[in-house]
Amino acid sequence: MATMDKASPRDRLLDAAVELTYREGVNIGVDALCRAAGVSKRSMYQLFDSKEEMLAAGLKSRIEGYESRFRADPEQASTPRERILYVFRQLTESADEPGYCGCPYLAALVELKDPEHPAHVVSREAKDRLKSTFRELAELGGAHDPDLLARQLTLVFDGASARSGAGVETLADGLALTMATTLLDAAGVA
Amino acid sequence: MATMDKASPRDRLLDAAVELTYREGVNIGVDALCRAAGVSKRSMYQLFDSKEEMLAAGLKSRIEGYESRFRADPEQASTPRERILYVFRQLTESADEPGYCGCPYLAALVELKDPEHPAHVVSREAKDRLKSTFRELAELGGAHDPDLLARQLTLVFDGASARSGAGVETLADGLALTMATTLLDAAGVA
Repeated sequence: MATMDKASPRDRLLDAAVELTYREGVNIGVDALCRAAGVSKRSMYQLFDSKEEMLAAGLKSRIEGYESRFRADPEQASTPRERILYVFRQLTESADEPGYCGCPYLAALVELKDPEHPAHVVSREAKDRLKSTFRELAELGGAHDPDLLARQLTLVFDGASARSGAGVETLADGLALTMATTLLDAAGVA
Repeated sequence: MATMDKASPRDRLLDAAVELTYREGVNIGVDALCRAAGVSKRSMYQLFDSKEEMLAAGLKSRIEGYESRFRADPEQASTPRERILYVFRQLTESADEPGYCGCPYLAALVELKDPEHPAHVVSREAKDRLKSTFRELAELGGAHDPDLLARQLTLVFDGASARSGAGVETLADGLALTMATTLLDAAGVA
């Protein structure tokens, strides 16, 4: 973490909240978070109302990077079908990286049983945005039922990320991509 | 809990471990578990080496009931295809019940980041058994690639249970059933 000294205490706390939660689960303690960020507890509570708010802010700050990872450049994928499949190609690649523990937003949704938890709310928004992206592309691609296809693709994305993140499945042979292809074919997206 | 007084301390602890973890997450404390079970901490540690072992034993004790819920009687479903779809019908019904938080084994896999955790091991076994059931039925049903179909169906099952359990999707309109049907058709299971 060569750049850590330059980051503000706020940014260091957000990074620690997101990264430790991702690796160890949402119940990571405030002491461990502050230690990892090199920020005192007192300073933390001056910056954030609660650990919950800090985690929510951290997850929110990562949405843009998360989405850009799945957004194809026009040269990489020109048709709606190709742009949908690009998402699953990127997921397949991510899942193969060391330290992959699945989609951080899905993990937070599963772990935080309380739908009012601020990080649950942010995670739900992130997943709804992914579904909306699929919906737009499904409509552009002429799907018979764009809503249904978007829900199906999001479900495959989440099932694939949960199972591969937990180490009980591998996506490396194109499992999620094959499923997305079958669903696109059945939905009439050529 | 009218029957609670008749259950042994061991069974009460197993029930509390499974139920509280399901509702509140795997990081529920030993004190809360003992309080819910009406068993002293001292007695708990005489019965189990650790909270981890207790949760693993609890999840293991539920596998049989979990599996029987998804196993169709011959009158309900006579062909392999119908028996596979029966699993998704039952999942759809479960997800509609109050208090549903998704598949307990998938939730444990997502929440417990450590693959050596005894409850992670038990949960993985439970999910592998579901996949094996799908594999047997896929082969009986003449799937082109029974292994692939079994992995796809398990992924749909887990994606559906994670999303509906987190309250961000509903299965009531047959979402998971439609997806399973599409995958069975594509795999040549008539």
